[in-house]
Amino acid sequence: MTDAPLPRSPAPRSPGFGSDNVAGVSPAILAALAAANDDSMPSYGTDDLSARVEARLSALFEREVAVFLVSTGTAANALALGALTPPWGAVLCHAESHIENDECGAPEFFTGGAKLVHVAGEAAKIDPDALAEAAGRNRGDVHCVQPAAVSVTQASELGTLYGVEQLRAIGAVCRAAGLKLHMDGSRFANAVAALGVSPAELTWKAGVDALSFGATKNGAMGVEAIVLFDRAKADELAFRRKRGGHLTSKMRFLAAQMDAYLDGDLWLANARQANAMAARLGAGLAALPGVALQAPAEANMLFVRLPQKMIDGLLAQGFRFYTDRWGAGVVRLVTSFATTAEDVDRLLEAAGKLG
Amino acid sequence: MTDAPLPRSPAPRSPGFGSDNVAGVSPAILAALAAANDDSMPSYGTDDLSARVEARLSALFEREVAVFLVSTGTAANALALGALTPPWGAVLCHAESHIENDECGAPEFFTGGAKLVHVAGEAAKIDPDALAEAAGRNRGDVHCVQPAAVSVTQASELGTLYGVEQLRAIGAVCRAAGLKLHMDGSRFANAVAALGVSPAELTWKAGVDALSFGATKNGAMGVEAIVLFDRAKADELAFRRKRGGHLTSKMRFLAAQMDAYLDGDLWLANARQANAMAARLGAGLAALPGVALQAPAEANMLFVRLPQKMIDGLLAQGFRFYTDRWGAGVVRLVTSFATTAEDVDRLLEAAGKLG
Amino acid sequence: MTDAPLPRSPAPRSPGFGSDNVAGVSPAILAALAAANDDSMPSYGTDDLSARVEARLSALFEREVAVFLVSTGTAANALALGALTPPWGAVLCHAESHIENDECGAPEFFTGGAKLVHVAGEAAKIDPDALAEAAGRNRGDVHCVQPAAVSVTQASELGTLYGVEQLRAIGAVCRAAGLKLHMDGSRFANAVAALGVSPAELTWKAGVDALSFGATKNGAMGVEAIVLFDRAKADELAFRRKRGGHLTSKMRFLAAQMDAYLDGDLWLANARQANAMAARLGAGLAALPGVALQAPAEANMLFVRLPQKMIDGLLAQGFRFYTDRWGAGVVRLVTSFATTAEDVDRLLEAAGKLG
Amino acid sequence: MTDAPLPRSPAPRSPGFGSDNVAGVSPAILAALAAANDDSMPSYGTDDLSARVEARLSALFEREVAVFLVSTGTAANALALGALTPPWGAVLCHAESHIENDECGAPEFFTGGAKLVHVAGEAAKIDPDALAEAAGRNRGDVHCVQPAAVSVTQASELGTLYGVEQLRAIGAVCRAAGLKLHMDGSRFANAVAALGVSPAELTWKAGVDALSFGATKNGAMGVEAIVLFDRAKADELAFRRKRGGHLTSKMRFLAAQMDAYLDGDLWLANARQANAMAARLGAGLAALPGVALQAPAEANMLFVRLPQKMIDGLLAQGFRFYTDRWGAGVVRLVTSFATTAEDVDRLLEAAGKLG
Repeated sequence: MTDAPLPRSPAPRSPGFGSDNVAGVSPAILAALAAANDDSMPSYGTDDLSARVEARLSALFEREVAVFLVSTGTAANALALGALTPPWGAVLCHAESHIENDECGAPEFFTGGAKLVHVAGEAAKIDPDALAEAAGRNRGDVHCVQPAAVSVTQASELGTLYGVEQLRAIGAVCRAAGLKLHMDGSRFANAVAALGVSPAELTWKAGVDALSFGATKNGAMGVEAIVLFDRAKADELAFRRKRGGHLTSKMRFLAAQMDAYLDGDLWLANARQANAMAARLGAGLAALPGVALQAPAEANMLFVRLPQKMIDGLLAQGFRFYTDRWGAGVVRLVTSFATTAEDVDRLLEAAGKLG
Repeated sequence: MTDAPLPRSPAPRSPGFGSDNVAGVSPAILAALAAANDDSMPSYGTDDLSARVEARLSALFEREVAVFLVSTGTAANALALGALTPPWGAVLCHAESHIENDECGAPEFFTGGAKLVHVAGEAAKIDPDALAEAAGRNRGDVHCVQPAAVSVTQASELGTLYGVEQLRAIGAVCRAAGLKLHMDGSRFANAVAALGVSPAELTWKAGVDALSFGATKNGAMGVEAIVLFDRAKADELAFRRKRGGHLTSKMRFLAAQMDAYLDGDLWLANARQANAMAARLGAGLAALPGVALQAPAEANMLFVRLPQKMIDGLLAQGFRFYTDRWGAGVVRLVTSFATTAEDVDRLLEAAGKLG
Repeated sequence: MTDAPLPRSPAPRSPGFGSDNVAGVSPAILAALAAANDDSMPSYGTDDLSARVEARLSALFEREVAVFLVSTGTAANALALGALTPPWGAVLCHAESHIENDECGAPEFFTGGAKLVHVAGEAAKIDPDALAEAAGRNRGDVHCVQPAAVSVTQASELGTLYGVEQLRAIGAVCRAAGLKLHMDGSRFANAVAALGVSPAELTWKAGVDALSFGATKNGAMGVEAIVLFDRAKADELAFRRKRGGHLTSKMRFLAAQMDAYLDGDLWLANARQANAMAARLGAGLAALPGVALQAPAEANMLFVRLPQKMIDGLLAQGFRFYTDRWGAGVVRLVTSFATTAEDVDRLLEAAGKLG
Repeated sequence: MTDAPLPRSPAPRSPGFGSDNVAGVSPAILAALAAANDDSMPSYGTDDLSARVEARLSALFEREVAVFLVSTGTAANALALGALTPPWGAVLCHAESHIENDECGAPEFFTGGAKLVHVAGEAAKIDPDALAEAAGRNRGDVHCVQPAAVSVTQASELGTLYGVEQLRAIGAVCRAAGLKLHMDGSRFANAVAALGVSPAELTWKAGVDALSFGATKNGAMGVEAIVLFDRAKADELAFRRKRGGHLTSKMRFLAAQMDAYLDGDLWLANARQANAMAARLGAGLAALPGVALQAPAEANMLFVRLPQKMIDGLLAQGFRFYTDRWGAGVVRLVTSFATTAEDVDRLLEAAGKLG
């Protein structure tokens, strides 16, 4: 669980490093909401903005895609998995995945009771060989749930990244075993920005069938896109979305957010800023005595071991981040599009004094 | 089904009378979104704005209430019913209700497969005597789903209103039979504005346990509040909301909408405008030859029989509304907070020329 | 609800006319259970008896069928409907059907929350024209559950029968609309016996996709066969059965019952006896003053209006049947394979004296 | 998965050691079925035999219990867990449990999508300390499923037994944490026979709330009892059973089996025979060169490492058992009430020659 409420601080509010969802909204996205407001417009996604978003995502992914906008990442993940997995199916995923730990059973709910089965791997990433083994287990045995889908998280819950080769290896296992491949991309932008690889290469070209394309953590107010690379499930997903209470009536306001997010590659610019701030933070902390990065900062998330005195001091000064979940003295620091160099430097300065 | 996409018109877009969800957002609500954006803020509803909304709704309803903000009316209804009804329960509702016809089975999904059972009544409203009969049916018979909850719609799907006495009679049946009472209030504001009765009188004082307090159709961008008058189900509802994918991370932006909606009674002002425009429209149409109101306009919705020539002509000129669902020649006209006297008069003028 | 527990009588137990499920088991079926017990045998349906049952049912239906044995009629119906209907689907059925009234929501549970939608028709039978209208309603409208399956009951809950032409008309509507057709045949044997038409003509040749082939009410201890005429759903149904807790480990004992039931056409002989006793009972009652058959006895069930004095007297003497559900003075009398002419004549004699 | 179909053998069928469900039915239970057939009898559990079974189980457990007969162990487990666990709950269980591996997701289905969470422990048994840790995890965190129930298997899937002290320790954790405790007792008789402790001591006195009291594997044809020690969930369970298709109409035939099973302690005699045969088999095999028991035989199940030549030879001669699931050369041998000393000695003799 990585996103539960942090304890409220009495101190003047300092920039939050607890999660990228404590940030607000990119000004361009707020402006787009205002711009979308000037007239009556058809509801439930039959508006022009929704059509434009689908066209833009098709262009971005170099392929005709079906797009379903929803307001939360949990909804995107659970609805996508519901369309890919029968009730007697297994979703193969990492034990550290968001769908397993942080969605209160939403995947079970939306699949009608499928089972999430863990697949091992380093750094919160599924290992392709372990996946191949799991994919073949119990096939056709009526006593056992049947492997049906695989879900990978890009960037992962530990901020690590799947490389293209790793994804292709996973995609190959899925194709060979007849499994559908879902990608939880609540931080997909951070992954693309960090890897410098095209969205198409990181998804359908590697075998991904459905992507939860996140925007909320990266500057939107509340919108995520389920992107289906295979349109065969599109009709079903439309009914599932409505039935789940996730078909927004004034859809233009979800579409406007996504449109602005894609416009001029705002999504990439925001992600680059977040990633750069994580790198700056990592470099600065690594230089302090008694501090140990647990891994290089691949995207916008750092796991760092700090002296307890430093942790206590920073929290007392109102800096906000999670601790005590990843071993003694290890904290998680998350940056966002809204994090500034000043924010980072303030924390570094405070940490330096506490070191 | 009353809110499916209307056919797109080639004509310059005229004010929509198809639904109140084709309108945009009240300026004050847009401004509140911008104002809520100036800093990092805790996520998932632990922010100050969310606390303020709960306090404001408690004041409005003259009682401590538990509030769960969600982004759609279907979510509000289905989550509330899920908390009030076991899987083997029956939800007693009118055959014309939104939960029965327009939510693609969301109540069945969120309750784990409960059954919606129809209760008769005039004008899309449940008759208390018919309810008493239905409430006693099959009690304790293990072969039958068990009456567990009642859902009323205020204002109803036909734009009609339950008076306080009617609600009290329904509430009394519920108490006597041990049933929970839910109110679908997607147009609750229109009802309060029309009836001139306090929100408390129209809800818990009459026996309502849970209210879907709508804002989206009445000027918000996308927010509805589940208001629990009995807090006993609050913990359960929190888990159900998360599990349904309806716990928004940047909750402050739902809270900001609701806060502005309640501030200075914007919700009532908006509803009064919508209701007044429906009355103006009704009066104007009634004066035309060949036109027959099907019922007096109680809130913001009119059902009117028009000459076919008039229907065809209005649609051809780009006016937008639903037809052909309520008998030959009967159209539904819905006004909203955004409907102006000019909008109404333009339609009346066009209709007059076609009469 | 037609099968709830009858009040216990203090009188010496007289033959029950309350339901065909108060009868015991045909001696040949009991003998088959004993015969199946003489050795260890593979479990979960991989035994020889199970294979023989599938072959026998294939022969009976003049077509390769997939067979799934379960222990209750509710399980057969709900599992079959679960395989034919997605969660956002509608099952079109008569308001008087068993699946709607007497299974405590099992179809909703096994479909993941589909909706049962009523189709009108005389004598508890779906009218093909009404079906055609319902089949076309709301197609493709994302706000509405989608017609997916039709369920007919043969013989119906009122003991009436669909003729071949009626079934073909229903089957034609289903094919035209892309709906699956399920038949609840808990009294299928009584229908075949009464109509003198082949099982094939009454099922797949008329368009039936899946049949709940009942045996329990007609002499078995507790076994029903889901017969799939289209094997495409067979794999899915196997998982659904296990997941529903309906895959019996010592399956040979379900298979032995069904095998004996089919052997030498015991199923037809039993049904003919039940039907003949209903006819004898109907003729005898019709001859009494003040007695009015509500309909001719088509299968093994009678609805008869009796003088209240006669009803009270019969119940006081220990005769057992349901009353007061079908209008004042109307009782339901059900015969079974175990009903004898003496049983019938005893009731007739008692009734005659009370007349 | 321990009970999937074994490959069919061409050899004359030798006694099966694959599972205790390949055995037939105790003669006394068959006789009871015949005896229950002599008259019409009320259906759905309102018969005298069903009442007698509830009384007998209350006497056996030294407490008023509520009893629900069903026809499979999966149904008993899943229905019980459904009554004890909300959809957002977690069922804490061992990774080797039947509910996790061998029920195709039935617990997920009947709970409405709860999550099975693994708790570590030796020999397929939950460790109380590990349980205490798991019971406290994520409590109240809305992002996480909530620990709600614990399920232990007695005897376990590896044939091991919880001692009374261990059960009490688990029960104490459950009480302290507010968790319900379920016991999967498909081999409960074998455990009681082996431990020589009263059923009450092994269940409610140690904190068990609901027991799946198995009979099918131990001489019945197909009946299991859900025994509720706390009657508060009885009403709910009645509806859940019907809704799951598990309310048998001719219930007397389930009751007759259970009645005969309890009569004269047949259940214990059968279990003692099975356990004794496992002990005899274990002792005999342990004396052979190259053979290594993996653990002492606590109940009616042995895990033994055999030379590959011996395994191949035994299978070729038609002996039936599972292999290759518990490490190279390890086979599982299960005895039942029907296993005779001759059966055991025949295997021992054959093994001796192959050694």
